[in-house]
Amino acid sequence: MAIRTVVWNEFVHEREEAEVRAIYPDGIHETIAAALRQDPEIDVATATLDAPEHGLPQERLDATDVLLWWGHKAHGQVSDETVNRVAERVHQGMGLLVLHSGHFSKIFKRLMGTPCSLRWREAGERERLWTINRSHPIAQGLGPSIELPQAEMYGEPFLVPDPLETVFISWFEGGEVFRSGLTYRRGAGNIFYFSPGHETYPIYHEPAVQTVLRNAVHWAYNPVPAWSDVSNAPNVPVDKAPEPIEQRGASLHKDGEAGFR
Amino acid sequence: MAIRTVVWNEFVHEREEAEVRAIYPDGIHETIAAALRQDPEIDVATATLDAPEHGLPQERLDATDVLLWWGHKAHGQVSDETVNRVAERVHQGMGLLVLHSGHFSKIFKRLMGTPCSLRWREAGERERLWTINRSHPIAQGLGPSIELPQAEMYGEPFLVPDPLETVFISWFEGGEVFRSGLTYRRGAGNIFYFSPGHETYPIYHEPAVQTVLRNAVHWAYNPVPAWSDVSNAPNVPVDKAPEPIEQRGASLHKDGEAGFR
Amino acid sequence: MAIRTVVWNEFVHEREEAEVRAIYPDGIHETIAAALRQDPEIDVATATLDAPEHGLPQERLDATDVLLWWGHKAHGQVSDETVNRVAERVHQGMGLLVLHSGHFSKIFKRLMGTPCSLRWREAGERERLWTINRSHPIAQGLGPSIELPQAEMYGEPFLVPDPLETVFISWFEGGEVFRSGLTYRRGAGNIFYFSPGHETYPIYHEPAVQTVLRNAVHWAYNPVPAWSDVSNAPNVPVDKAPEPIEQRGASLHKDGEAGFR
Amino acid sequence: MAIRTVVWNEFVHEREEAEVRAIYPDGIHETIAAALRQDPEIDVATATLDAPEHGLPQERLDATDVLLWWGHKAHGQVSDETVNRVAERVHQGMGLLVLHSGHFSKIFKRLMGTPCSLRWREAGERERLWTINRSHPIAQGLGPSIELPQAEMYGEPFLVPDPLETVFISWFEGGEVFRSGLTYRRGAGNIFYFSPGHETYPIYHEPAVQTVLRNAVHWAYNPVPAWSDVSNAPNVPVDKAPEPIEQRGASLHKDGEAGFR
Repeated sequence: MAIRTVVWNEFVHEREEAEVRAIYPDGIHETIAAALRQDPEIDVATATLDAPEHGLPQERLDATDVLLWWGHKAHGQVSDETVNRVAERVHQGMGLLVLHSGHFSKIFKRLMGTPCSLRWREAGERERLWTINRSHPIAQGLGPSIELPQAEMYGEPFLVPDPLETVFISWFEGGEVFRSGLTYRRGAGNIFYFSPGHETYPIYHEPAVQTVLRNAVHWAYNPVPAWSDVSNAPNVPVDKAPEPIEQRGASLHKDGEAGFR
Repeated sequence: MAIRTVVWNEFVHEREEAEVRAIYPDGIHETIAAALRQDPEIDVATATLDAPEHGLPQERLDATDVLLWWGHKAHGQVSDETVNRVAERVHQGMGLLVLHSGHFSKIFKRLMGTPCSLRWREAGERERLWTINRSHPIAQGLGPSIELPQAEMYGEPFLVPDPLETVFISWFEGGEVFRSGLTYRRGAGNIFYFSPGHETYPIYHEPAVQTVLRNAVHWAYNPVPAWSDVSNAPNVPVDKAPEPIEQRGASLHKDGEAGFR
Repeated sequence: MAIRTVVWNEFVHEREEAEVRAIYPDGIHETIAAALRQDPEIDVATATLDAPEHGLPQERLDATDVLLWWGHKAHGQVSDETVNRVAERVHQGMGLLVLHSGHFSKIFKRLMGTPCSLRWREAGERERLWTINRSHPIAQGLGPSIELPQAEMYGEPFLVPDPLETVFISWFEGGEVFRSGLTYRRGAGNIFYFSPGHETYPIYHEPAVQTVLRNAVHWAYNPVPAWSDVSNAPNVPVDKAPEPIEQRGASLHKDGEAGFR
Repeated sequence: MAIRTVVWNEFVHEREEAEVRAIYPDGIHETIAAALRQDPEIDVATATLDAPEHGLPQERLDATDVLLWWGHKAHGQVSDETVNRVAERVHQGMGLLVLHSGHFSKIFKRLMGTPCSLRWREAGERERLWTINRSHPIAQGLGPSIELPQAEMYGEPFLVPDPLETVFISWFEGGEVFRSGLTYRRGAGNIFYFSPGHETYPIYHEPAVQTVLRNAVHWAYNPVPAWSDVSNAPNVPVDKAPEPIEQRGASLHKDGEAGFR
């Protein structure tokens, strides 16, 4: 069965700025979606900020295996309700790919618990992503490095937790470095942050970048049934303890009662 | 110079329930504060939910090196403003010790990015905390294990990210296990979660538990100056790049302009 | 294509001791192999200590995707040459499952870099393995815990590096805990340590234990081509640098020369 | 009490090659030792390959808190006995700083369990080490980066396990990146790998590099008493189990007997 994937884009730059529209006439999401569709195992749809519930109502999220997230200038317009729904689905097992300026999205900050800040420069300089772990599934089909002739510089320190794995580290012409491909797990959900993708350069048209995105969809996909009650903290009644025990001492709760939250 | 420490407690159970008041007549915070005061290098104050700004206004947080957090039934009454201030101070370098039912506090869930859910049972059963890493600073002065004659069971799965270090794992009489001492770093701040501490048992009177808390204050203390702009994402102008480069291609930003958030 | 798997067993206890032979008449390796063969995607063979090169000559290792290792009283009889070959293949991408008393095998200590010591007791007590991460591929098809009516106690501290992931933690009737399922990556190779499997109890006949082993073979399998030169440290000649540079200053090496080892 | 530190150097290049002797007339170890002696809390001695037992007999190691290791062309001349002794002391709690070409030393490979291979080029190019975690004790007193006008390029992939923390990442003029400051824990011992330090450049004369080394000695120092039996796997007799249990089923061991190794 195909991996049900949704590419989410705030879709603002492409409408407001001619330079961006020239590169992504149908929006960044459509270029990414077309790249993913080259893989018959990936079933691709898109969603944008301006749709009702930002295109991500509960029932759609429940039917999504992997979500890609591109946002930049409209992070603040994403409703907290949507962020809550997406976070809960990640905890239940939905994969999440956070792209480029999505480092400052509400959903990424929510899942990381850190500021997710970094240094940046928009000079159209050369970026070279080095594969740190060439045996990682996300790095398959690539050479030792990916070269981007023009990129926005993202520089360290990048304020995220130490990752599960460091997949890529970038070299920039102007002298900086950046951990440009990082994996995390939050609950049952696999998360990959991938930094290339500035709106004024044709980065998502690069074949190697498209390969990374397809690989990452496969990597992030968790085929296990959704962990639907991942946020619950159930009481284990005394008579259901794995080992026989007897109640001793005071208790403020009644057996089987819900705990405080 | 002493480590400026604040013990925060919601201070509700002790006022409402006679069983709890019998064990902690002045509140859990005062028992913990007294334990910390045995260490002359720790300077101890307390704060409670009912104080203005929950006793944690900005200027007080700015003068706090390590914060301890005990909450249970009133998590929802902690204002989001206070949670934001505390999270920012942790990112800047303030240490945080989250205790027992604080696993479901807003601040812990914020910093972890996961549900922080678990299983539980209030049967007054025996708990034995095994020291996984006996060379860790938090484990100094302890034997191979700590035995609590009566404890609330907290059982796995505990929905937190994989920790920096696993310091303690608990065995429960009723048959469960729990990762009862875990370390994390978020920004410049060191975080320790320590699960013992149910309000109906005299756990904070236990000498070994008090030793852990004193050790953990020392461990969490980051003597480095506060990283006051940890959340900022500054632009690096093209003419300030470490290597000489020239602007190429389109840019939506002006040099030195603030980025989008 | 099937995952080419070899189950290695020192095969000494089963020949020397009637109690063990009664449980594993053809050797522990044959019981494990039969369990793996229930999965048509796993192609299973076996090897034992007494074969030439312990049944693991280079060409066989080169054709092996996942190796399982059971050893106990004859760790010292495994030749260093074989250990070197196996370690190199793990670095190149062969998966490795280390079972029970294999914690003290030369190959596991080699790959961990730590003593791999633990506490133990052979009392036939009850063990309950709790699934810490129920969304992990290794935990699929299991309930919240696996109960073994009789097991050898392995207790913390277990002197291994902090793992990539903690999949299982065990509870023991006699009062101890143990991290009984841990994942690691070393080079391109995935490693899983799984502690159940004492020779005097029929543990490898347990359906849930067999499920874990089959899952772990799939998890450890890295379908990427072998990283055959993983141990090489090639010189990058100055004229092959990704960015044009000129040689400056003294050099003890000639261009393209091999480095010191 | 001062931190008892030993700087170990193979001390071969400085004797054989005039270019190296010009930079380090008394040997690299003496330059490093002089840098450490600027800190009154560090007590510094040196040891070299040509001394009996390479200057590291058991009783000296037992009296050493932190060991620094510089080796390059004579890795193979270090005896396995010495490597064993050093590894055991690290497991017991001795800190270890592995410098530059020490990535291929027997002791580092032993403690990592991986090939520790990398790419390299000796072109005297510029290296810039970026501080990834500026709140880390090892990074105190530094700015956002350290610039080395001439360095040997070490490039990714660097075949080591995912570290506890990534402290520095290097940018190279020729286009590569490298994780140049990594922390690990093995048993009770703290390990820091720091890549700058090529013998033909005056890198250990750089004040910022000297600051890193002094910081790292403090960080690696574990004041806890040595874990002298860290490699032992003691039996816990049935009648000493924390919870009362009775022996059930077959046992191949007698109570209190040593296990197999």
